[in-house]
Amino acid sequence: MTADSGAVRIGLLGCGTVGQSVVRWLEGHEGDGKPADNHRLEVGPILVRDTARPRPGVDPALLTDDPARVLDDPDVSVIVEVMGGVQPTLDYLRRALQRGVSVVTANKQLMARHGPELFDVAQASGAELRFEASVCAAIPVIKVLRESLLAAEVTAVTGIVNGTTNFILTEMARVGLGYEEALARAQELGYAEADPTDDVGGADAAAKMAILSSLAFHSRVGIDDVPYEGIDDLQPEDLAQAADLGFVVKLLGVARSQAGGISVRVYPGLVSRGHRLAAIGGPDNAVLLESPTTGELMLVGPGAGGDATASAVVADILSVLGTHQGSFLHNALADSGRPLMPPDEVTSAFYVRLSVADRPGVLAKVASIVADEGLSIRTVVQSGTGDEARLVLVLHEGRERQMKAALARVSEMDEVRGEPVVLRVLGTGEGEP
Amino acid sequence: MTADSGAVRIGLLGCGTVGQSVVRWLEGHEGDGKPADNHRLEVGPILVRDTARPRPGVDPALLTDDPARVLDDPDVSVIVEVMGGVQPTLDYLRRALQRGVSVVTANKQLMARHGPELFDVAQASGAELRFEASVCAAIPVIKVLRESLLAAEVTAVTGIVNGTTNFILTEMARVGLGYEEALARAQELGYAEADPTDDVGGADAAAKMAILSSLAFHSRVGIDDVPYEGIDDLQPEDLAQAADLGFVVKLLGVARSQAGGISVRVYPGLVSRGHRLAAIGGPDNAVLLESPTTGELMLVGPGAGGDATASAVVADILSVLGTHQGSFLHNALADSGRPLMPPDEVTSAFYVRLSVADRPGVLAKVASIVADEGLSIRTVVQSGTGDEARLVLVLHEGRERQMKAALARVSEMDEVRGEPVVLRVLGTGEGEP
Repeated sequence: MTADSGAVRIGLLGCGTVGQSVVRWLEGHEGDGKPADNHRLEVGPILVRDTARPRPGVDPALLTDDPARVLDDPDVSVIVEVMGGVQPTLDYLRRALQRGVSVVTANKQLMARHGPELFDVAQASGAELRFEASVCAAIPVIKVLRESLLAAEVTAVTGIVNGTTNFILTEMARVGLGYEEALARAQELGYAEADPTDDVGGADAAAKMAILSSLAFHSRVGIDDVPYEGIDDLQPEDLAQAADLGFVVKLLGVARSQAGGISVRVYPGLVSRGHRLAAIGGPDNAVLLESPTTGELMLVGPGAGGDATASAVVADILSVLGTHQGSFLHNALADSGRPLMPPDEVTSAFYVRLSVADRPGVLAKVASIVADEGLSIRTVVQSGTGDEARLVLVLHEGRERQMKAALARVSEMDEVRGEPVVLRVLGTGEGEP
Repeated sequence: MTADSGAVRIGLLGCGTVGQSVVRWLEGHEGDGKPADNHRLEVGPILVRDTARPRPGVDPALLTDDPARVLDDPDVSVIVEVMGGVQPTLDYLRRALQRGVSVVTANKQLMARHGPELFDVAQASGAELRFEASVCAAIPVIKVLRESLLAAEVTAVTGIVNGTTNFILTEMARVGLGYEEALARAQELGYAEADPTDDVGGADAAAKMAILSSLAFHSRVGIDDVPYEGIDDLQPEDLAQAADLGFVVKLLGVARSQAGGISVRVYPGLVSRGHRLAAIGGPDNAVLLESPTTGELMLVGPGAGGDATASAVVADILSVLGTHQGSFLHNALADSGRPLMPPDEVTSAFYVRLSVADRPGVLAKVASIVADEGLSIRTVVQSGTGDEARLVLVLHEGRERQMKAALARVSEMDEVRGEPVVLRVLGTGEGEP
């Protein structure tokens, strides 16, 4: 195999859900004018255990069960590690980095246990080591800590970094499910694995906090430095009591850097209802980064998912290439050529307030005009009497021109006083025609 | 002036609050082992209007009122633009970029009006153009859109991108202030300028949304493409009515990319109380980024502030250098040598539940032990009677060892049944000794 001139060859270790999604992205974006158009990205050899298993979108000729074909390919300049496990993965990545090949990994356990060692190898050879996908999928907390906050002293990282436990705790609090029922529901919905031990016991969150606190505090915090407790021992009466006292219970990662040193812990903790993290529900993750320079920054999003993880891996690949070869990032402002919509065609839900004379049939007239313009009413509130009555409508999603046409006609009604007030409503469907 | 061998010389256009803060950071980090230790960063010539004005921490010998001394210095490899305004700034930056000098700017108006043009110039010469500080200060939304979401199709950007109006609307809703009073309060607290027109009228948010939607949708959305409305016309009765209907009112930037094209608008809109953006209060900003690949990512934080803005400028400088010269980012995992605290010395507030026999004096005994170990009680709830009574304490911040010592003694009390339950409480002061 020789690389095309100007092409960047990406080798893969592993080709499961995330790996396949990465391959599809790389293949799909070869030369189609998308962000990667300055360098053709070429998928190179892919290490898998079973080369015979079909993988949609992946050329079987690229599959190999010989690690050397990936690790020693002189044309591979970036290796993507999505095989998981600590060994032999550690040996493979060490070998690649020693050769100066940059590595993008999604491997949380490996980074939590051997991140500092791999960093030293990378630094010595000038290779890059990136691992956004190892913590909270597509939530870009690694990049933000490594790059955006490089000039800020981070003093605290507080996170809800395990979606399984957050879903379980949210369900327990929301509908009063017991722990076992909530876990079963999480498993049904794919938010918990068949063996949920690592998630509910806190070990998964501890590994993530080791990585995050190492970056935040420029320190080498290993997974064994993080004491953790899980949610499996929580008693329903404590959840109820916490609620009575104005708290919600969350599985928290709490890392602090202060005069006396660093502390990093994972535990189910009480969070005051007014706290930013209290509102993070369901399977979402959130990380709060505190610094005297920047104040409190919070990143929120889904902390898992194959496509989200693959997106983080691809972004890391592009960051490695951008860093070494310059020109990827410019394309962020490339023009996709998508036109602006005419303003009258843009849609939203609407809030409309009318001052009306309270006569029989006013609402019927308004409703008829609104319907005639193709809009539908979600809520009506009528208040006041006589000439000072007020009619408030909340309309379902519609176009600006429909709303304007309806209001022009409504304004002409004898019973309507002054100008209608219109505000838009942010619905789940704003912008969906 | 000639640059030290291996040093990177940074020129500045402007030296107000943000510029001075950037200079102090660059000077303070020369060769002290912090992230910048691979390249000495050197502050070069600084363009100012009045060279005689004293600027703390800035060497007066670097000040010049001749733009050519910054723009044409052959040893300057990055220019930081913090002078503001559209002209002559645009000409200066065009000239620098044409020469291949990378530019870091905090200039929102310039980027919203001339970003695409400057990008073209940068792309032609191979220079970099970075502008994180131009939108929402240290909230890293530009980097996340340009780099982290490069592999994800962003379909919507919804933001609260103006802190002044968010503070005013929060105060109006929270304590029922009228608009004028809330504005006056914002001015008192430094959240609104003496002339708040650009903020309250929506123009500031529109400029930010032009920049964000250009990046998100790979499109050239100019400031004139963004229709905007402000909050200065809002009627108190609509805020009250919205609250009755379960909404809060926020000044929203709403950008959508869909089949029919792109729409970008700024308006005061009703947000359902359960929506993520409804909880963003006070002067905070938040940007919600939606993509089918990553789900909903939200970034939250203070959207203004001199130090935060300077931190974003410095991060951009380091990103430019990292991109061109490789080795900055490795230092993110350099070891600061800060030790881990002994676990028993770590502090937090505590929730403690005891099963007790309801005899006279039990609470007094418990309270006395707790006080004796140096802990103080915030809340006590006693419930149940007889041998099945329950005593719940919420303790103020204290050390693990104090809590353990107190509980060991409490457990030995005749009246206490079984093991106490302890959960930690996330307080504002967790980790502060």
